[in-house]
Amino acid sequence: MTDTSTREHTAPPQTAGSPGPLSPEELDRIHAWWRAANYLSVGQIYLMDNPLLREPLRPEHVKPRLLGHWGTTPGLNFVYAHLNRAITARDLDCMYVMGPGHGGPGPVAAAWLEGTYSEVYPDVSQDGPGMKRLFTQFSFPGGIPSHVAPETPGSIHEGGELGYALVHAYGAAFDNPGLVVAAVVGDGEAETGPLAASWHTTKFVDPARDGAVLPILHLNGYKIANPTVLARIEPEELTDLLRGYGHTPYFVEGDDPEVVHQQFAAALDRCLDEIAGIQRRAREDGVTDRPRWPMIVLRSPKGWTGPAEVDGHRVEGSWRSHQVPFANAREDDAHRQVLEQWLRSYRPEELFDDDGAPVPAVRDLHPQGPRRMSANPHSNGGLLLRPLRLPEFGDYAVPVAEPGTGAVEATRVLGEFLRDVVRRNPETFRLFAPDENNSNRLGAVLEATDRTWVARREPDDDHLAPDGRVMEVLSEHLCQGWLEGYLLTGRHGLFSCYEAFIHVVDSMFNQHAKWLKTTNGIPWRRPIASLNYLLTSHVWRQDHNGFSHQDPGFIDHVVNKKADVIRVYLPPDANTLLSVADHCLRTHQYVNVIVAGKQPALQYLDLDRAVEHCTKGIGIWEWASTDAGTDPDVVLACAGDVPTMEALAAAEILREAFPDLRVRFVNVVDLMRLQDDREHPHGLSDTDFDSYFTTDKPVVFAYHGYPWLIHRLTYRRSNHDNIHVRGYVEEGTTTTPFDMCVINGIDRYSLAIAVIDRVPRLRARGAHLRDRLHGQLIEHRRYVRANGEDLPEIRGWQWGSGGGPVVVGSGPLHEPED
Amino acid sequence: MTDTSTREHTAPPQTAGSPGPLSPEELDRIHAWWRAANYLSVGQIYLMDNPLLREPLRPEHVKPRLLGHWGTTPGLNFVYAHLNRAITARDLDCMYVMGPGHGGPGPVAAAWLEGTYSEVYPDVSQDGPGMKRLFTQFSFPGGIPSHVAPETPGSIHEGGELGYALVHAYGAAFDNPGLVVAAVVGDGEAETGPLAASWHTTKFVDPARDGAVLPILHLNGYKIANPTVLARIEPEELTDLLRGYGHTPYFVEGDDPEVVHQQFAAALDRCLDEIAGIQRRAREDGVTDRPRWPMIVLRSPKGWTGPAEVDGHRVEGSWRSHQVPFANAREDDAHRQVLEQWLRSYRPEELFDDDGAPVPAVRDLHPQGPRRMSANPHSNGGLLLRPLRLPEFGDYAVPVAEPGTGAVEATRVLGEFLRDVVRRNPETFRLFAPDENNSNRLGAVLEATDRTWVARREPDDDHLAPDGRVMEVLSEHLCQGWLEGYLLTGRHGLFSCYEAFIHVVDSMFNQHAKWLKTTNGIPWRRPIASLNYLLTSHVWRQDHNGFSHQDPGFIDHVVNKKADVIRVYLPPDANTLLSVADHCLRTHQYVNVIVAGKQPALQYLDLDRAVEHCTKGIGIWEWASTDAGTDPDVVLACAGDVPTMEALAAAEILREAFPDLRVRFVNVVDLMRLQDDREHPHGLSDTDFDSYFTTDKPVVFAYHGYPWLIHRLTYRRSNHDNIHVRGYVEEGTTTTPFDMCVINGIDRYSLAIAVIDRVPRLRARGAHLRDRLHGQLIEHRRYVRANGEDLPEIRGWQWGSGGGPVVVGSGPLHEPED
Repeated sequence: MTDTSTREHTAPPQTAGSPGPLSPEELDRIHAWWRAANYLSVGQIYLMDNPLLREPLRPEHVKPRLLGHWGTTPGLNFVYAHLNRAITARDLDCMYVMGPGHGGPGPVAAAWLEGTYSEVYPDVSQDGPGMKRLFTQFSFPGGIPSHVAPETPGSIHEGGELGYALVHAYGAAFDNPGLVVAAVVGDGEAETGPLAASWHTTKFVDPARDGAVLPILHLNGYKIANPTVLARIEPEELTDLLRGYGHTPYFVEGDDPEVVHQQFAAALDRCLDEIAGIQRRAREDGVTDRPRWPMIVLRSPKGWTGPAEVDGHRVEGSWRSHQVPFANAREDDAHRQVLEQWLRSYRPEELFDDDGAPVPAVRDLHPQGPRRMSANPHSNGGLLLRPLRLPEFGDYAVPVAEPGTGAVEATRVLGEFLRDVVRRNPETFRLFAPDENNSNRLGAVLEATDRTWVARREPDDDHLAPDGRVMEVLSEHLCQGWLEGYLLTGRHGLFSCYEAFIHVVDSMFNQHAKWLKTTNGIPWRRPIASLNYLLTSHVWRQDHNGFSHQDPGFIDHVVNKKADVIRVYLPPDANTLLSVADHCLRTHQYVNVIVAGKQPALQYLDLDRAVEHCTKGIGIWEWASTDAGTDPDVVLACAGDVPTMEALAAAEILREAFPDLRVRFVNVVDLMRLQDDREHPHGLSDTDFDSYFTTDKPVVFAYHGYPWLIHRLTYRRSNHDNIHVRGYVEEGTTTTPFDMCVINGIDRYSLAIAVIDRVPRLRARGAHLRDRLHGQLIEHRRYVRANGEDLPEIRGWQWGSGGGPVVVGSGPLHEPED
Repeated sequence: MTDTSTREHTAPPQTAGSPGPLSPEELDRIHAWWRAANYLSVGQIYLMDNPLLREPLRPEHVKPRLLGHWGTTPGLNFVYAHLNRAITARDLDCMYVMGPGHGGPGPVAAAWLEGTYSEVYPDVSQDGPGMKRLFTQFSFPGGIPSHVAPETPGSIHEGGELGYALVHAYGAAFDNPGLVVAAVVGDGEAETGPLAASWHTTKFVDPARDGAVLPILHLNGYKIANPTVLARIEPEELTDLLRGYGHTPYFVEGDDPEVVHQQFAAALDRCLDEIAGIQRRAREDGVTDRPRWPMIVLRSPKGWTGPAEVDGHRVEGSWRSHQVPFANAREDDAHRQVLEQWLRSYRPEELFDDDGAPVPAVRDLHPQGPRRMSANPHSNGGLLLRPLRLPEFGDYAVPVAEPGTGAVEATRVLGEFLRDVVRRNPETFRLFAPDENNSNRLGAVLEATDRTWVARREPDDDHLAPDGRVMEVLSEHLCQGWLEGYLLTGRHGLFSCYEAFIHVVDSMFNQHAKWLKTTNGIPWRRPIASLNYLLTSHVWRQDHNGFSHQDPGFIDHVVNKKADVIRVYLPPDANTLLSVADHCLRTHQYVNVIVAGKQPALQYLDLDRAVEHCTKGIGIWEWASTDAGTDPDVVLACAGDVPTMEALAAAEILREAFPDLRVRFVNVVDLMRLQDDREHPHGLSDTDFDSYFTTDKPVVFAYHGYPWLIHRLTYRRSNHDNIHVRGYVEEGTTTTPFDMCVINGIDRYSLAIAVIDRVPRLRARGAHLRDRLHGQLIEHRRYVRANGEDLPEIRGWQWGSGGGPVVVGSGPLHEPED
């Protein structure tokens, strides 16, 4: 580690005679900009008329419902003003990620001052009527949210759910060598797990290839009602902590704006100089040691510049500033007077001209065009998005001589395709995994790149390099957050994860899906690449890890979000996985969930059939069906690799026992095909659905996940009452692969029994087979308890082997498992 | 902050001539115990016969499927051995929480050595046949999981999902002043968000009242395939980080067992001395400053004592040790020979007697009875659980003169009840919230206690104290984890959270629900208190916060788990909330989810009616119905406070317009009543269900959450096809409360229209009303867009006001909001 800093952790000390780096004129300009942004922020929270205070404040000028968060806003505005000075002085390409996103009025005010707001929302013009609209729309029906949000120009970050500022900032910085991402971390947010983990991204950012993140830890001391942890530990302890994260912290502290302006400007200059130095050493001198990145700690009063006291209670510098500092400003004359004094304290008459536009002295501070943080193209990543250069996925297809044979690890095949995606897109595509890339059989990508690692390396390490494109850390939060930041700034990626543990990021997924849904309605937001999940190591193959690793519920969670942003795929084999993955990597504005196993498994469809099947999303497998294109006696349906295999084995049992039974075999790849076309764009019409599932025949459906999801997706279909679903019912343990199916009733024997029980003309004829199948289940149970593995005829089964004792080993485990 | 340590961060240096604190005899004993535990661990992973190696290893002695994790196990065993020495020497009450829970063989081996395993599983006896069973059962069908699990005596921690070791340890330590919880934190796990946040619990543990947690950060260097971050930062940086967390770290490092034994013993002694000193100063000298707690960093090779090299690849000290270090030990003679040499290197003949029992030299190390960590009663918390002393909840009931009137904040009433629960149970009940206790209107509890806060306090702080019982931190992960640890060690608690953000802990909930489900099948595990969630600030009242704060999907997530461990309640008002909360606090082995609003709202049921309604869980509200006990034309059903109000208003519209329409009004408190009694213990029989919902009449159901859950719960009911559900459909924005209902179609007007559309005899007669209601919707939209608040007749509506313009304000907001 290269430590270029000394152990001085404060900016150069300011004395009375040493005014700091800002000339009086610069100081005035920054302070005027800050006053303007603060004025506009307070206006958004309180006013619906008289925006320029051209007349005394009357009750009807004040909003009836006062909503918003003042406390953090002046700090956000302060940092914004200073970044603007630095951007102009250094021609910086700089983005601003605001962790305390509740301070929504701040960035909205800044975007309006910079003119961006009126560019994208012309009716919110830079004049008095526009300012009135700016104020009224805030946290108002039909208006904008009170948090930093998709509606906010310049933001890639929704401020509602806290904890993701730093990880988003790093995602934006990766592969953007010219970019500086200033990330304000609130001291409330800093208590969250994801934020606490994010600091360690210092070990994953390459100073040669990636841009820089400048964290600004904003200690304003209070959360909603409590002090914050980081504001109440001793300064030395905080210094230790931040150095322990790999940073050199510079402390800026105070409540006198003039002093703090000078201190902050000095600290910012020093940090930007250090960043430039780090990058120069890495890029020009070839230094590969991990640098110690600078950061700023800004300790300022909560609700800074707000009223000091209201009704005898301290407000500025107290938790009472967190939200709206005082209520009833419409009805209560005294409160309204406090509000007016507060607004006038910013001297709006000096900040806005007769029309209400910012005066030149204010406008001059901010940079122009795309250098404005509110208009930085990285913050509207779709502007920069270029399609991936994808290899022909058919080139990676595995041959399938006979359907239902072979033993291929589907994700291993996918890994070869992804390897070449990495090769062809060396700056715009990354893979993310919680230390599971090889375990998930994507190891081939390491032929094209390495794992990102900027910490110390040792001789026995496997494929580690600062410029690796496989990002592995044992934190689903970091994988998700990095990828979100990377996508939101116009790049592409894939997150591979154990199926059960993707629930760790349920809430982050929620927020990203909401972002996509909202941006679909914002014309100036350009589409970004989809967020692709590959969920492997799935519920049916946790024989190694047991109950804690069994949970297929992420699909259910995803399906609760708006249909136009979510897609779920369950490719049954390697070639269908290739086809699905190729498709997903070409899409925009979706969350694609792909569930596919990594174990050696049967293959069903050659390339042509796979493409056709995936394009339709659902299909009848003629070769497995015995209904000869006519009306079936029963539909045997399946979705997911293990359920498909078991359903096929059940079909074989049935065709041997009842040669005249007409079984239609239906496989579903695109789960959303099951839904009504009025509810999901991929949904089948009722006519199409009925053509697969009939209107009156029994359907036995073997499904990968919790069975009720299939009911939910199909409850409006005319044949719904005849659909019998088998899936995971939270019965699990440490056992063999087939035994897991037996425990949950989706094994071949139980499925065959389910068919016998539902086809009227089999009830009598099927009794013998039924009894034999029950016997098989008992024999199975006895065998696995004694031998610890499945019966040879189960392990060796393939389509056409008819349940005979074809013994095939399950193959060696090449990769370490979680 | 009291810093009693110097900045020496290593245990006293060991020189050749200074053998350290262990006498040769003690060293031998510890080492023998460690060898025994390691031998038994390797045996579990590899063997199914010949457990004592009384004959050469033959293929059939080796398991056909090799599963488990060796890498972390010797480290866990090492720490266990040393803790045993200290427990005996100091008569410590000590628990062991093993973060690297994949190392399941270790604690199982320890429990067997200590005799506990054979006590709870008599067929796994302390002899040769028992050892054979011990080995065979590991990660074997019908056996035990490969991770630390509910089946493992002495554990409160499932080792499958990583990140919760430290937070569980702290939960165990709270209110247990005599307890020391040794918590091994794996360096993989340390990369997770929850673990990274957990370190800051040092600001929430009271040395006077609480027990101590001794973190042992185990750097074994590798995850599955990657190095770990904390093992690859510089030692000074790691020291800074751990000091920044508030600890004094002592480093122990090496691979020579003899040296490391001495170092670790010295470090452990020093830490335990410091802990005793900290507690004495707090308890006897009244020191209230936050102490700097000691901790240990143990850097040892991954797979320590395993084979150094296999097939030319380094194994000990490498990621190849993570799981099973080498495969094919059954078929491959060379590998089997390596295995036999490895096992014999522990010299089992010295460790186990002729019968296979541990020899006295091994047995003597461990403490006796409940001092054994595998038998510590805190680790089987149900043994210590005592029911809460609950006040009479009826004493807190609000009067309800007329149903559907008033304006009561339900959670504020609950807060008064909880205040007295805190008073009566000053050592066994805590409240947990992500800085939302007051925002969620539970402020009354602060009359009885304070918020836990051991960091620096300042004069303006509100109710902070080291011994407070309200635990607030801006991390749902910490709230959940602390509460889990507290419950698992036999205490009680409640977690109040914003509804949307409880998804942050989806995955932690999963694991806790799985723990409960599994322990229900383990007779020696005694029932623990239920985990109670209060989800307030719910989806329908996020007018303040907007779309990011709107998500009712936690209920869906919960309902995927086994029916016998989950309960969901939607009390519509204050008295029903009291009744439900009282019930939940008395239950065991459940996860109870209570969803209840915090805003001023109508009250429906007086105490007696509330108790009856909650006891039934579902009921017909006669006063709101017009079917006069006869066959209804339509059933208007509802669940949740806002849907109940809207459904009632719809009922009033309908009764005024169509005096002869027979509407049955059904309210559901206990959501699981809707499910089939074959699927959930609370489920209604079909007969009961039909008696509420009829078999053929239209049902219009206004539901709090995503509508499809109601379909899922009722899809087997005979009247299912007639059930029309309205709920949240992920359409949200920043708007007024009523407008949120309109946007999602659960408002009174839309519900009334839904009834008109579904009752055949209203189709013609209802056209005028239908048209008028559509007009109302348009008028509403126009009004809120102009005024930013709901129409007076909406804000002021109460049952009996008939939609007239009764203007009632929504009341001042007393508490700060998130």
